[in-house]
Amino acid sequence: MMSRLFMFEKPLGMRDTLPELYEKKHRVRSLMEDTIKRWGCQFIETPTLEYYETVGSASAIQDAQLFRLLDKQGHTLVLRPDMTAPIARVAASKLLQDDMPLRLAYSANVFRAQQREGGRPAEFEQIGVECLNDETVSCDGEVISLLISSLKKAGLSEFQVSIGHIGFAQELFLQILGTDERANSLRRFLYEKNYVGYREHVNSLSLSSIDKQRLLQFLDLRGGVEVIGKAFDLIENEQGKLALLQLKELWDCLNDYGVEDQVKFDFTIVSHMSYYSGILFEVYAGNVGFPIGNGGRYSLIEKFGKNASATGFGVHLDRLLEALGNYELENEVTCIFFSQERRKEAFQLAEKMHEQGKRTVLQDINGVKNLDAYTKKFADTTYLLGGRADE
Amino acid sequence: MMSRLFMFEKPLGMRDTLPELYEKKHRVRSLMEDTIKRWGCQFIETPTLEYYETVGSASAIQDAQLFRLLDKQGHTLVLRPDMTAPIARVAASKLLQDDMPLRLAYSANVFRAQQREGGRPAEFEQIGVECLNDETVSCDGEVISLLISSLKKAGLSEFQVSIGHIGFAQELFLQILGTDERANSLRRFLYEKNYVGYREHVNSLSLSSIDKQRLLQFLDLRGGVEVIGKAFDLIENEQGKLALLQLKELWDCLNDYGVEDQVKFDFTIVSHMSYYSGILFEVYAGNVGFPIGNGGRYSLIEKFGKNASATGFGVHLDRLLEALGNYELENEVTCIFFSQERRKEAFQLAEKMHEQGKRTVLQDINGVKNLDAYTKKFADTTYLLGGRADE
Repeated sequence: MMSRLFMFEKPLGMRDTLPELYEKKHRVRSLMEDTIKRWGCQFIETPTLEYYETVGSASAIQDAQLFRLLDKQGHTLVLRPDMTAPIARVAASKLLQDDMPLRLAYSANVFRAQQREGGRPAEFEQIGVECLNDETVSCDGEVISLLISSLKKAGLSEFQVSIGHIGFAQELFLQILGTDERANSLRRFLYEKNYVGYREHVNSLSLSSIDKQRLLQFLDLRGGVEVIGKAFDLIENEQGKLALLQLKELWDCLNDYGVEDQVKFDFTIVSHMSYYSGILFEVYAGNVGFPIGNGGRYSLIEKFGKNASATGFGVHLDRLLEALGNYELENEVTCIFFSQERRKEAFQLAEKMHEQGKRTVLQDINGVKNLDAYTKKFADTTYLLGGRADE
Repeated sequence: MMSRLFMFEKPLGMRDTLPELYEKKHRVRSLMEDTIKRWGCQFIETPTLEYYETVGSASAIQDAQLFRLLDKQGHTLVLRPDMTAPIARVAASKLLQDDMPLRLAYSANVFRAQQREGGRPAEFEQIGVECLNDETVSCDGEVISLLISSLKKAGLSEFQVSIGHIGFAQELFLQILGTDERANSLRRFLYEKNYVGYREHVNSLSLSSIDKQRLLQFLDLRGGVEVIGKAFDLIENEQGKLALLQLKELWDCLNDYGVEDQVKFDFTIVSHMSYYSGILFEVYAGNVGFPIGNGGRYSLIEKFGKNASATGFGVHLDRLLEALGNYELENEVTCIFFSQERRKEAFQLAEKMHEQGKRTVLQDINGVKNLDAYTKKFADTTYLLGGRADE
């Protein structure tokens, strides 16, 4: 027998999913997958293990968060930390043909090594979509609308997609601060969502009071479509204005989709993901402290030797379940208890119920040591025991 | 950019599942899962990574086949090599209550490190059931009947479940050969399915010609229920006879289930899995060279500190797909091409089609560089372009 110390233990951040949660997850996943398929996306699966050289280094996840191992040939492998890099690999090597748009989807577990007990999960499921090789703003609009539609189908009603553009903050900061290094220092406060730190940092810079004011006003660029107009007042740079024109076009597109009620603008969204290159967004719901999903336009396929822009989203399934709130599943399971004499009759009854889609357990009464406790597990019980009176 | 050498590579034995195969796998998995749920089994999920001390050492998979890594605390982790040991861990620590029967199920990827290129997959999906804490033969019969029923629902018609009993070969060999060591030497030929080697080995032993004859006749114990009678003639040992009585009871039970046509006896089945303790079986289909599934009664929960017998099966999903044969999926996807002027109309049409469950892609015509090639991807196309004549 193994040591008692380890007998029931799991590695740090690893979890079991017991029957009730499994069933809830399965329902939500199926509803999302079904919507994604109807929108014409094709699901694929990639290996859990990838070469570090290939996918680990292309991923935007920090090295300290990677689970690594050596294979028998001495190569470093990683447990995939996200699905975006593996999908870029598959698309570039096999699926991107003749410069055509490609809509892929996945539902997969990803892995992030955790440093401390009690922290975040080290393995969690993401459901997502990647639309490749279509550079139109319509395609960004499609991704956001599909995200909203699939969340609604999954039963989520109260949520908000906050949309920004990586190009606007970048261009505004460069325009005022002059160097990438200074722009990056300021941006770090944004992805830590440390707005107090941001203000202090801005006030500590040797800038004109007008420029300081612009950097502080930037924090207010959150709300409805009117913030696009306000943003135009802050920017002088052509690239920055182009970002705003894209956001305006996206807004029109989301209106045509009829999903504008779920959408706000938030120019302070700047992902830590290094590969984002355009429109980007985060989804928030109820009291869940982290975004339940996020996405945007990115440049990653290039690392795999093909020129193809991409835009996509990923939803964190456990957080979506948290947002959906707790509810009890109805117990609909019947148990047919039988003894040998009436076994065949029991089997025939169970078969009929299975055919009707009714969850039915067949239980030899001799297999149960604690009948009183066991019967409480079921919504209904039937007993086919002993000889029949008519025999 | 990463080195060209690695750009498209995957680790040894790792595979991508592209859209068409993904969809076929998804269908087959859903049909099996649905049947398993109707029979009242509860699905659970366990982590991909487990402690070597806990699950790696309890598993019957050889150490050389384990993917191992160290966590940040210096413990050895393994990628789960099977689901039986993790389920035993979860059941013993959380789910086995009050000595009641428990029916669990899983659908999960498992991992076996491969030594050579071109070999078996290093990651593959298993769907299975584990019935715990019910020692009746009815429960073995239920597991085999559920296996047969779920394979039929998945569309498989030509297959055979070969049933044996670990106790019979063991007792017969012990009775004739006298020591565990000698019995194990002979048994090794059986699990390698090396019957020529078995015969040669038997003939090389210094035994009476009667005993040699019995060991050679043992190889003929394959066929219908009549082989149970033949087996009685070979065995003198009480434990061995008990194994035969269990098989006879199982046969009656499978008859009551009406699945006897899919079942044969094969007393030469002896799994390499060290934990099997009673009835065991393998499923063969068509031209697939390996069993598409297997299972039996086993003693493993004890390693996790609880007394509970268990019986279950696992199906190797890729092999099941191979047995189902190749067929083309019908392309049912429509593409609606739109330009900005008619975007809203396009979205409304797509929404209607999505609601009807029709797979429909929305495509901004400006996002397509190679329209002729792209339209060939779809079963049907609709164009909503330019101003409308009536406007």
